[in-house]
Amino acid sequence: MATVTPDHLDRQLGMSALVARERDLAIQYAEHCGAKLQLDLTRGKPSPEQAALSDGLEQIVCGNYVLDDGTDVRNYGGLIGIRDARQLGAALLGVRNDEIVAGGNSSLTLMYQYLFSAWLYGPLGPETAWRLEPGPLKFLCVVPGYDRHFTITEDLGFTLINVRMGSDGPNMDQVEDLVSEDPLIKGIWCVPKHSNPTGQVYSADVVERFAKLATLAGPNFRIMWDNAYAVHDLDDQAPVLTNLMDLCRRENTVNSVVMFGSTSKITRAGAGIAFMAASPDNLSHFTKRLAVQTIGPDKLNQLRHVLFLKDLHGIRAHMRRHAALIRPKFERVYQHLTDGFRGSDLVSWTTPRGGYFLSFDAPKGLATEIVRITGEAGVKLTPAGATFPYGHDPEDSNIRLAPTYPSLVEIDQAIPVFVTAVKLAMARQQLALHEDQ
Amino acid sequence: MATVTPDHLDRQLGMSALVARERDLAIQYAEHCGAKLQLDLTRGKPSPEQAALSDGLEQIVCGNYVLDDGTDVRNYGGLIGIRDARQLGAALLGVRNDEIVAGGNSSLTLMYQYLFSAWLYGPLGPETAWRLEPGPLKFLCVVPGYDRHFTITEDLGFTLINVRMGSDGPNMDQVEDLVSEDPLIKGIWCVPKHSNPTGQVYSADVVERFAKLATLAGPNFRIMWDNAYAVHDLDDQAPVLTNLMDLCRRENTVNSVVMFGSTSKITRAGAGIAFMAASPDNLSHFTKRLAVQTIGPDKLNQLRHVLFLKDLHGIRAHMRRHAALIRPKFERVYQHLTDGFRGSDLVSWTTPRGGYFLSFDAPKGLATEIVRITGEAGVKLTPAGATFPYGHDPEDSNIRLAPTYPSLVEIDQAIPVFVTAVKLAMARQQLALHEDQ
Repeated sequence: MATVTPDHLDRQLGMSALVARERDLAIQYAEHCGAKLQLDLTRGKPSPEQAALSDGLEQIVCGNYVLDDGTDVRNYGGLIGIRDARQLGAALLGVRNDEIVAGGNSSLTLMYQYLFSAWLYGPLGPETAWRLEPGPLKFLCVVPGYDRHFTITEDLGFTLINVRMGSDGPNMDQVEDLVSEDPLIKGIWCVPKHSNPTGQVYSADVVERFAKLATLAGPNFRIMWDNAYAVHDLDDQAPVLTNLMDLCRRENTVNSVVMFGSTSKITRAGAGIAFMAASPDNLSHFTKRLAVQTIGPDKLNQLRHVLFLKDLHGIRAHMRRHAALIRPKFERVYQHLTDGFRGSDLVSWTTPRGGYFLSFDAPKGLATEIVRITGEAGVKLTPAGATFPYGHDPEDSNIRLAPTYPSLVEIDQAIPVFVTAVKLAMARQQLALHEDQ
Repeated sequence: MATVTPDHLDRQLGMSALVARERDLAIQYAEHCGAKLQLDLTRGKPSPEQAALSDGLEQIVCGNYVLDDGTDVRNYGGLIGIRDARQLGAALLGVRNDEIVAGGNSSLTLMYQYLFSAWLYGPLGPETAWRLEPGPLKFLCVVPGYDRHFTITEDLGFTLINVRMGSDGPNMDQVEDLVSEDPLIKGIWCVPKHSNPTGQVYSADVVERFAKLATLAGPNFRIMWDNAYAVHDLDDQAPVLTNLMDLCRRENTVNSVVMFGSTSKITRAGAGIAFMAASPDNLSHFTKRLAVQTIGPDKLNQLRHVLFLKDLHGIRAHMRRHAALIRPKFERVYQHLTDGFRGSDLVSWTTPRGGYFLSFDAPKGLATEIVRITGEAGVKLTPAGATFPYGHDPEDSNIRLAPTYPSLVEIDQAIPVFVTAVKLAMARQQLALHEDQ
């Protein structure tokens, strides 16, 4: 977390100086607008260069469609995925080979299917169905977080409760208090490593407390542990995530966690393999439902991935190639922000060592305005509030930046526009405050 | 429908002749058992030779991942599929380009998602949600039919009602009476062409009556029109299916039909593209829900299919290659049955000109026993009753035969075992009846 106070953002400036600064920034902003940029920093998408790293997938099967066990991957059968793909997923998520499902192309679909099944059919059989509980169900959302997580639980009718993200993970005092007090809280959404959008990695202490959470919570509470960025480090200095499933084994709480991951940001975004990891108890109930909902995953694509990535060692080698492409982009963003806000304590941002995002906190009440005027200058950002349930940031302060898709040249164009927009919005806010006094 | 009476199955035989015949058949059956066969005729799977027809898919993309419209199929985006895949699906199902979604690898998943969404969220908005209706919901099932259809609606809590299949489609008098009387019947499962398992094609008259069904039924009634075998003809003499969507346009009932199809039995079983076709009204509500449930389909696999199949003409050419492989198998089965049951009117079977199945009707009460003893002689058949809701054939008479996967040699081994098993079960039934008299 970098916070600095710039001299030119000093609150003690007099009215005329504030007016002058607003005018200077407005001129600078108008110049940016004149450049007629058309840049999009909205989503965490791999760049075309990253996608090309996996082009070897396309011709790798080479006519060998039949696996050791006789499975023809071109034909029906195999609900939980081919053995070698499941082993790859187990290694990726750090679980046993009997705790993994290798699915289709979307971990989001597995998350939806899991939650919907827990609600309608019960995570451990009909008598455990969440819908039978006496009262409106709730779900905890670590904020800022991933909009598509929140939307799933909103769509299924849960009331969403914000839990604040700190520098080492969610505020666990708050999480423990909430789940102790209300048994209708059925779960919590987590991105434990290089969290979307802050980039933080949950500390060992936080993971320890997650392993014990089920002992405080109501029946059939589930931690939705979306380890989407399990191997997505920018360098070898990235923090290591403590293995939650191992700790749950010690605490006898293995049924309380359901893990997700995918190769979407390893190989192909939307054309990779998704994984779900859970206890054999959880899986046996879930796969009964899954059997009704699908004929099974695309085994041929799983085979492509197994041949291409081979094992966890192969995945790590591949991820170093991604890191070489995206590390300079993150660092360029950090540099622009540091240069632009030198000495300011009114704004702050995270400096993740992995993942796909960083998170910027503007002064309260300015995020929507900043995103608007940045957009009007041709640089599209994730809508303000998108990282909060119901699209509502109570402080209207958080902005998500996604540096992976644009080129370095585009980052050099886009981030200065953003910096100017932030400063302009701040100058106008200060001017308005001054006028009110 | 072939029905014949064999002299040796004459009911007028005396007790000693019946005993002698049972003994002869038991000896014949024991010889089959001695052959220690291990054959599986349970599921409608393409053979390895059929799978190989599409091996060209694997290397067809050749590095060109970016579509005319700028879409990179290796990256995120595109909920309803790439344009060219949608056009392919529209041609396959006979609908307009604004009436189609190209999805993932499983049309069954689309069916589940559609029905689940209609139940929970409403087919045309929240106020139309099926779950709001006053009383237990019901669904019509054409029998014999496809077990996985029935299971979806059973899993979602519908009461399933059998409607009998005739030679030109479902008994429409029965269908019309049922939906007129009970507005809680929310839909009907149909496989209108080369129906699973009878192989019949719905007649023009039947399709006409389907187009008008919504005018008799309760609110938001939906015809689940699974056109799984749209282009799966054994030869050019196969009957043509009347276009239901066109008739619905004329009747102003387009919202009452939802169509499905896939390339599972065109290219790769479980690794092809699934399609859903519906009115723009239906699609606009459904895709809002779909957006929550997935990041979108595997566009790269869609591109492979577009390049490989090209258009409906390409699909038809490809299907002729399938037909060349499977037509001899169907004909061999028909021959064995004709030879085995010459002159009998106690058994009957269908002789489809397409699809993946034929349907055999044994005398009442014998299907379970026939499947059991055929299985004990090493030839596994689809469980008796599987083609009915709840796995229960009220007459215990229907048996589904799936000739596509086994080789001709295996068919020559398997069907005679089946014929002997049928005759043996019939002889024992007659003996038991005789003894009762």
